[in-house]
Amino acid sequence: MTASALFHTCYQDLLNGPLSHWLNTLPQQMDSWYRDDLHGEFKKWQRLLGKLPQVPPGNIDLRESVTVGDASSTDPYTQKQIEGLLRQFMPWRKGPYFIHGVHIDTEWRSDWKWERLKSHIEPLKGKQVLDVGCGSGYHLWRMYGEEAAGVYGIDPTQLFFIQFMAVKHFLGEAPVHFLPLGIEQMQPLKAFDTVFSMGVLYHRKDPMEFLNQLKSQLVKGGQLVLETLIVDGDEQTVLMAGERYAQMRNVWFLPSTSALIVWLKRLGFSDCKVVDESVTSTAEQRTTSWMESHSLQDFLDPDDHTKTIEGYPAPKRAVIIATKN
Amino acid sequence: MTASALFHTCYQDLLNGPLSHWLNTLPQQMDSWYRDDLHGEFKKWQRLLGKLPQVPPGNIDLRESVTVGDASSTDPYTQKQIEGLLRQFMPWRKGPYFIHGVHIDTEWRSDWKWERLKSHIEPLKGKQVLDVGCGSGYHLWRMYGEEAAGVYGIDPTQLFFIQFMAVKHFLGEAPVHFLPLGIEQMQPLKAFDTVFSMGVLYHRKDPMEFLNQLKSQLVKGGQLVLETLIVDGDEQTVLMAGERYAQMRNVWFLPSTSALIVWLKRLGFSDCKVVDESVTSTAEQRTTSWMESHSLQDFLDPDDHTKTIEGYPAPKRAVIIATKN
Amino acid sequence: MTASALFHTCYQDLLNGPLSHWLNTLPQQMDSWYRDDLHGEFKKWQRLLGKLPQVPPGNIDLRESVTVGDASSTDPYTQKQIEGLLRQFMPWRKGPYFIHGVHIDTEWRSDWKWERLKSHIEPLKGKQVLDVGCGSGYHLWRMYGEEAAGVYGIDPTQLFFIQFMAVKHFLGEAPVHFLPLGIEQMQPLKAFDTVFSMGVLYHRKDPMEFLNQLKSQLVKGGQLVLETLIVDGDEQTVLMAGERYAQMRNVWFLPSTSALIVWLKRLGFSDCKVVDESVTSTAEQRTTSWMESHSLQDFLDPDDHTKTIEGYPAPKRAVIIATKN
Amino acid sequence: MTASALFHTCYQDLLNGPLSHWLNTLPQQMDSWYRDDLHGEFKKWQRLLGKLPQVPPGNIDLRESVTVGDASSTDPYTQKQIEGLLRQFMPWRKGPYFIHGVHIDTEWRSDWKWERLKSHIEPLKGKQVLDVGCGSGYHLWRMYGEEAAGVYGIDPTQLFFIQFMAVKHFLGEAPVHFLPLGIEQMQPLKAFDTVFSMGVLYHRKDPMEFLNQLKSQLVKGGQLVLETLIVDGDEQTVLMAGERYAQMRNVWFLPSTSALIVWLKRLGFSDCKVVDESVTSTAEQRTTSWMESHSLQDFLDPDDHTKTIEGYPAPKRAVIIATKN
Repeated sequence: MTASALFHTCYQDLLNGPLSHWLNTLPQQMDSWYRDDLHGEFKKWQRLLGKLPQVPPGNIDLRESVTVGDASSTDPYTQKQIEGLLRQFMPWRKGPYFIHGVHIDTEWRSDWKWERLKSHIEPLKGKQVLDVGCGSGYHLWRMYGEEAAGVYGIDPTQLFFIQFMAVKHFLGEAPVHFLPLGIEQMQPLKAFDTVFSMGVLYHRKDPMEFLNQLKSQLVKGGQLVLETLIVDGDEQTVLMAGERYAQMRNVWFLPSTSALIVWLKRLGFSDCKVVDESVTSTAEQRTTSWMESHSLQDFLDPDDHTKTIEGYPAPKRAVIIATKN
Repeated sequence: MTASALFHTCYQDLLNGPLSHWLNTLPQQMDSWYRDDLHGEFKKWQRLLGKLPQVPPGNIDLRESVTVGDASSTDPYTQKQIEGLLRQFMPWRKGPYFIHGVHIDTEWRSDWKWERLKSHIEPLKGKQVLDVGCGSGYHLWRMYGEEAAGVYGIDPTQLFFIQFMAVKHFLGEAPVHFLPLGIEQMQPLKAFDTVFSMGVLYHRKDPMEFLNQLKSQLVKGGQLVLETLIVDGDEQTVLMAGERYAQMRNVWFLPSTSALIVWLKRLGFSDCKVVDESVTSTAEQRTTSWMESHSLQDFLDPDDHTKTIEGYPAPKRAVIIATKN
Repeated sequence: MTASALFHTCYQDLLNGPLSHWLNTLPQQMDSWYRDDLHGEFKKWQRLLGKLPQVPPGNIDLRESVTVGDASSTDPYTQKQIEGLLRQFMPWRKGPYFIHGVHIDTEWRSDWKWERLKSHIEPLKGKQVLDVGCGSGYHLWRMYGEEAAGVYGIDPTQLFFIQFMAVKHFLGEAPVHFLPLGIEQMQPLKAFDTVFSMGVLYHRKDPMEFLNQLKSQLVKGGQLVLETLIVDGDEQTVLMAGERYAQMRNVWFLPSTSALIVWLKRLGFSDCKVVDESVTSTAEQRTTSWMESHSLQDFLDPDDHTKTIEGYPAPKRAVIIATKN
Repeated sequence: MTASALFHTCYQDLLNGPLSHWLNTLPQQMDSWYRDDLHGEFKKWQRLLGKLPQVPPGNIDLRESVTVGDASSTDPYTQKQIEGLLRQFMPWRKGPYFIHGVHIDTEWRSDWKWERLKSHIEPLKGKQVLDVGCGSGYHLWRMYGEEAAGVYGIDPTQLFFIQFMAVKHFLGEAPVHFLPLGIEQMQPLKAFDTVFSMGVLYHRKDPMEFLNQLKSQLVKGGQLVLETLIVDGDEQTVLMAGERYAQMRNVWFLPSTSALIVWLKRLGFSDCKVVDESVTSTAEQRTTSWMESHSLQDFLDPDDHTKTIEGYPAPKRAVIIATKN
């Protein structure tokens, strides 16, 4: 299915649910995106997508993993073909996916992150949820596995969109949608029950504006699930990264969890809780055959894994939940 | 059904047909129309619509008339109730309608106009059609009677929209839609097989721009069906009305049919043909109990019905068809 | 002086007069014009302008002609140089100009047109005047010769702007300005005492809109001086040209003067008068050494100069004056 | 002089200097401000301004104070009249001003602030300078006293604009201008040699965006002079205020000077230096007869002046200079 056709199925779902006002802006944005903003390789990637074989889904598991079928659900040749095509969309960062016996061993064990937060958040059953900065969409499938009624992910990176489409190809029709957008392009829908944003806040030069944008997508009483890099410290501790942090060029504010909670309260959230805090391990984020370039190991001080190569505290991430007043 | 709900059914039809790109602009326009542009009485009218009784449609005729049910399809009390409510939406100009035995005897015999042109135009079966300036939507139903696949009417007058909704209430679900818009607000869809515009051209200060707007809604090879006031004369005959023409304040260019055909050709139409020309009679346009104020009779010179009260030639109308190159 | 510098002198004049509100839009438009809309040759032309020698103006006549200096006001070499540079800006259509003995013998004898209308219009002394479609600006200088206080010409053709700058170079500082704009880009200033538009109306697909735009530049009681192609006939006579008229591709409505006066009255003008009507002669519009391609002679039926080569009536022009109510 | 007339003198200065591109947006903004955004009292204030007596300026001192004339430069009656009118524009926050013997004893001793920073900044002589959040414009006059060539202050508070106009009335013509704008409304001029912003940063929810806006007004190599509330601490110390800080509702980030310098470097400034740091005293900010409501004294913990009434560290301010790379 092409991007345009996918958007149409998304509009269908919007029309039939509490998000129909998104049609005020979305079709025009997607149309202009498709006409003017396509990545140079996008059409090629889309043609490759078209070659993915049709395989009946068979068993699907989205509660414990993202798995469709297994090695026996298709023949070895088709399996090779699937793997070959999916490898065209490397690097794969967020996963893992198990597709008819092909294990997409992604840079991140995003399933571990999900395990850590899943029991702490409001149940997603019947909910409308948004994932801001969804990457390849791994967590979108897990949210759907928790029986969310409508699942929407946004991310401007077009390769991630292609990866999402590849996975969706095998999983079949579902109210799970990817829109190639940044949060700043979204009208304030005030309509999602839960908004996730994992791994984005520290990339924002203006974190308060970003948190406000997340808030503006929530219904009153809706829940924000925020995951970001943090530092140790008290309410007044906030690290501003230099040109690079763990080799990333685009890192800005790293608050302590206490400071972050002050920020959230100031913006009109309540019930702010830290539900997980963990130093990222080189087992959770690492180079694989599906993401062959440098990963966490290479970004840490070789002599002292508690520090980044630049001398900052090594990446530590927290998950904070908060409720919109 | 409220206006918003009706728009949703329209978007559904758009999504499933060749007009889905209209979603780029329509939802936002309708949303802002509903928030900012409602007529002072609109909400009241909508409440009245809500009181229309549910009556099973029974027999429907849209080929020879616009008729649903008859006197026997409901009880006398309900019929009274229907008539009483429909009379709240007076004046009714375009019709007539026959609704469960209630005869809405409109100012215009729009059915006569339809009879005069129907055999001359491209068959509508399976087509997407647009009626620009559709009034209460009488001809929309007749187009649907001819088995058009999708029928869209636009008219900025909100009372006409209410009248349309009242009729639609009794006729049930159909791919027949009214959008409260002016043509200048429509993106150039280039997607309709046939575009009708009857009784609008002479109201435009800039007729060429208007004809271009109609053209921009047609597919290549699509047909324009244009009805307007004309005068007798050759290719160089064009009457510009004064402050009033037949008491109307807003009348501008009245070309001869020959002049109008020159205009159409100049703009890129071909196969231009006059398929009907007729002086409007006081039998076709007249005061009724559903439109009680002045009508044609009062706008003509009492001593000489070949002239308007201002001394211009009495209203003569032509239907011209033309094909977009 | 560069275009930017010229605009600055224009803004100075605007600031000191009744047109200062034009600064609301003009600087931004001129800035974006200069950045994004320059003709491919503009910078080259501007460099050539920079080579025009400085010659003290000496005698200037703007009342009977546009003349600065004469053959004796500079040496033969400089005169050659002037002529050589000015010929780089061919074709010259509107004139003639006499510059230090160089006679720019333009296609049109625009001085004849001026003679025909000058005694009929409101005196320009102390007035703010606008010329819409001013070409090289010949009439701007004549308006200034009549002691208008501020003279503004607009025309989107960039070669005409260069020609204007070349002439202005020799005439020295004066409140005479050329802005490379179309009328549709101008905010409605309601501030000019007299608005001229000569030779533009017939190029407009929508003449009523154009006349309204002209009106919106006038103060109440201000005078419109309109020159356009007309045909013989009564109030209902309007010729719509075909693809070409006298070989021009972009000709639309040619009304009779009676019809044009009906239009003007309808739009809110009064005191409408035809002050000149004349068939354009091949002495007034012709090929010269400064405009070497085809001219009127070639656009007329060789056997019958009362007709264009396409068979339309040969070009006849009228000057109409009208007052804004 | 009315606001409009003042804007005109500003545009004159812009046209003649390196800021002429500001005309691309400023006139339109000021025009629409004047038409749509006037404070309910503005017209009344402007009428009061019109009653200020004309007094020859006599001696003016802008190097050590803002003083025009003295008690002897006019008669006691006129002096009374001046004082009475100026008191209509209370509360006066930034000053003090000495006007023909009237001492406007403002809430703030802004002269003290100026003394603390003046010797540390780049000399202003011949420079174009901007003061973002200029209040009544006290420092604008001091900048002009240092012989800046063009001095521009912006502040959206209209009473401050009136106060500025009142002072300007007595000081006479000078290239010192006040524009009722917020920094976010200014096009990035990249044209000021020095940009001041004193007492604004802590009011911004998104400080990085604000610092970028300041930077975008500077020429390359230009100097930022930034004064803001700070807290003690190291590079990772940043206080986020709660709903109120020292009773102010709109306070956000209070970084340490070390943290602020990290921010500035990250955004492309160099040569960042803290040139002053001082706890605000109740002698510098206090209730006076020209600002009668609560002041600093009332915002501090009555038992411990090192804390605000909310328990935060008492206001401490730093002046930081930095150069745009």
